[in-house]
Parts: sequence; C-alpha cells; structure tokens
Amino acid sequence: MRLARPLENLIDRLQKLPGIGPKTAQRLALFILKMPVDEARQLAQSIIVAREKVFPCPHCGFLTDENPCLICRDTSRDRSLLCVVADSSDIIALERSGYRGQYYALNRGFNLMDDIDLGDINLQPLQQLLAREKINEVILAFNPDMDGEVLSRYMAVSLHRQGIKVTRLAHGLPVGGDIEFADEITLRMAIEGRKECI
Amino acid sequence: MRLARPLENLIDRLQKLPGIGPKTAQRLALFILKMPVDEARQLAQSIIVAREKVFPCPHCGFLTDENPCLICRDTSRDRSLLCVVADSSDIIALERSGYRGQYYALNRGFNLMDDIDLGDINLQPLQQLLAREKINEVILAFNPDMDGEVLSRYMAVSLHRQGIKVTRLAHGLPVGGDIEFADEITLRMAIEGRKECI
Repeated sequence: MRLARPLENLIDRLQKLPGIGPKTAQRLALFILKMPVDEARQLAQSIIVAREKVFPCPHCGFLTDENPCLICRDTSRDRSLLCVVADSSDIIALERSGYRGQYYALNRGFNLMDDIDLGDINLQPLQQLLAREKINEVILAFNPDMDGEVLSRYMAVSLHRQGIKVTRLAHGLPVGGDIEFADEITLRMAIEGRKECI
Repeated sequence: MRLARPLENLIDRLQKLPGIGPKTAQRLALFILKMPVDEARQLAQSIIVAREKVFPCPHCGFLTDENPCLICRDTSRDRSLLCVVADSSDIIALERSGYRGQYYALNRGFNLMDDIDLGDINLQPLQQLLAREKINEVILAFNPDMDGEVLSRYMAVSLHRQGIKVTRLAHGLPVGGDIEFADEITLRMAIEGRKECI
C-alpha cells in the first residue's frame, strides 16, 4: 500500500540506520508523527548539530566538539601509557573500565574480507605521537576476532621494532560468563592466561 | 565519562524513541556522526517534514499529507463496509490483508489502567460518517486484549442500538502458529469459532 510520501520518506531514512529494519522504522516514524512538533524539531536539530560540531580529536581520535578533547586536556592522566583502539567508540567503553592513560583511535575500518591492505592504515599520526610523548607502553585493544588478531600482530611487530613495549588486552572468560557455554578458543586462552590465586 | 555535548544531546533525544535503550541510542548516534553530512541533514529534514506535513485524514483518521487521503479518494473501494480501528497504524496492517472497505481510526488512546472513561472517546465523527454514508456493516478491529475487548463491547452495544450490523475480527490460532504453544484463551476461542471443513 502507498503511505503518505513524507511518512514513506522518513521510514526509508530511518531504515538506513544500523539494526533498524522495516518494522522498527515504521514504528519509530509513527511515533515521531505523534511527538509534539517542538520535540520532533529538537530531535532533527540534535542530528544536524551532532553531525556538524563533533569531530575526531586530531590528537587521539576521540569524538569531541573541542580541540584538544576532554581526554587530551586532562593533565591528571598517565601520559606514559597509550591505548590504541580501532574506533573512537571503543574509547567510550574503555573509559568505563577506569583506565586513565592516553588513547589513540585508528578510526579507519580494517576488514580482512574487504581486502584492505594493512599498509593502507595511516600510522603516521601515531608515530608522531610516539616521537613527541614519552610513552612507556602501548596497549593494543582490538576486538578479539580474526581482524583484531591480524591488526594486533601487524602493529605489535612494527612497534616492537622501534623498541616500544607493546601489550594487548587479556583474553579469557568474560566476568559473569558461564564456562559451560564458553567457546573452546576462549577457554584455551583462559587456561593459557591462568594466574596464581595467592 | 563525559561525551561531547552535541553527541550526548543526540543520544538523549534518540533514547526518547520507543524501544531505543541507552546502548542502541549510542550506536545510532555514533553511526550518524559517521554519515555523510548530506545524509544526516536529509534524515533530520525527513523528521521535520513528516511531522509537519502528515496529519490524520479528517474523514477516516489515516495518516496522510492530502485531504481527503488516498483511501478516502479511492472510488473502487466498498463504501458499505466500515472497519473501525484504535489507531491509524492498524490501517497499515489491515491494508496488507487485502481488505478493501473504508476505515475509521479512533486515534485516541484507550487504556483501562489509565482510568480513561469510555465516554471520553469522541464518537461524533463516526456517527456523522454513519449518518452520511450507507454503511451495511461495521467491523470492529481492536487488539485482542482486555482494552480491545472492553472497547469492542462498548461500541458494539452503542452501534447495535442504532440498528447497525456490527462484527469483529475472528480470534483463533495465528497462521504459522503452534497449537502446543498457544495460550488456553486463544485455543478456547479457536474451538468456539471452529468452522466446517467441507
């Protein structure tokens, strides 16, 4: 059936968002039609403002509306520790863990399936940062999947050659997880990475 | 942790949409930040245009940007059959079933828990429609829940008093459903509404 064109257009646009299928897009669009006009306008405005004012911090890649960003300006942080992540959204998660060092986000998709060459990843800003700051340790924090492993190995070799201490996040059982349902690779990693209790 | 204010604001706004929790809102917001500026603007624009141009058709309550709406303008439809629904979104679903009569959407929440009086539902436009058009049958199509039952009973009594034939959608097993998992009320309805096979 044909819906009113502005409604159809809104549903189409919402469907382009990740995880939003046709049914959810329709539900959201119908909800928006029932919102007070002011609230609908504010939602639209917040999309435009966020898209136009927020950019990756030129120093660390964190999403910010100021240069340098909040994290880079924070003098209380450990400036000898640098955590490298694939995407700035990973910084949001790591901040919640209580980590208080610096960050560097590659902000550049790397996907084995897409046949993107590792050499295409621009590591120059990272190299400049390492040359400028006294970094004692680089922590690689990539997703524990095939892409993350390849990326970790590549960067570890490259950084190690420069005499920098490189570590990566531990693999193991997620807290609250269930041994019964853990996959065999995670379990193998958890056994290999076992620690003395006392 | 503090995020850039425009990003935080966008996440807050997205969270007000139905079924969008904090994690989904963050994922959507980060996706929007990576969209081409043009696309982000078009998404925002589609929200404003839909909210401002789409209204319930004054005749049937269907969401439209023209008066009368597509359905009311369609002369090929059976004008003696009127399907009453609670909300215009129900019309979208019924249209997909192949029903080709008229509609009337109450477009007015009725919720037993909210202590809304049935008398508060404005039935005048419906009465005017019934007086104006030659309606042979009114089909009540409310959700098969307690609110829908109460609303059906109330309207059936009121319309029946005026000598109008009133029917309601059949209850029974959903197609593709499983008898094993059907609740007892649905099963009882399915037995009561059984039909001869030949």
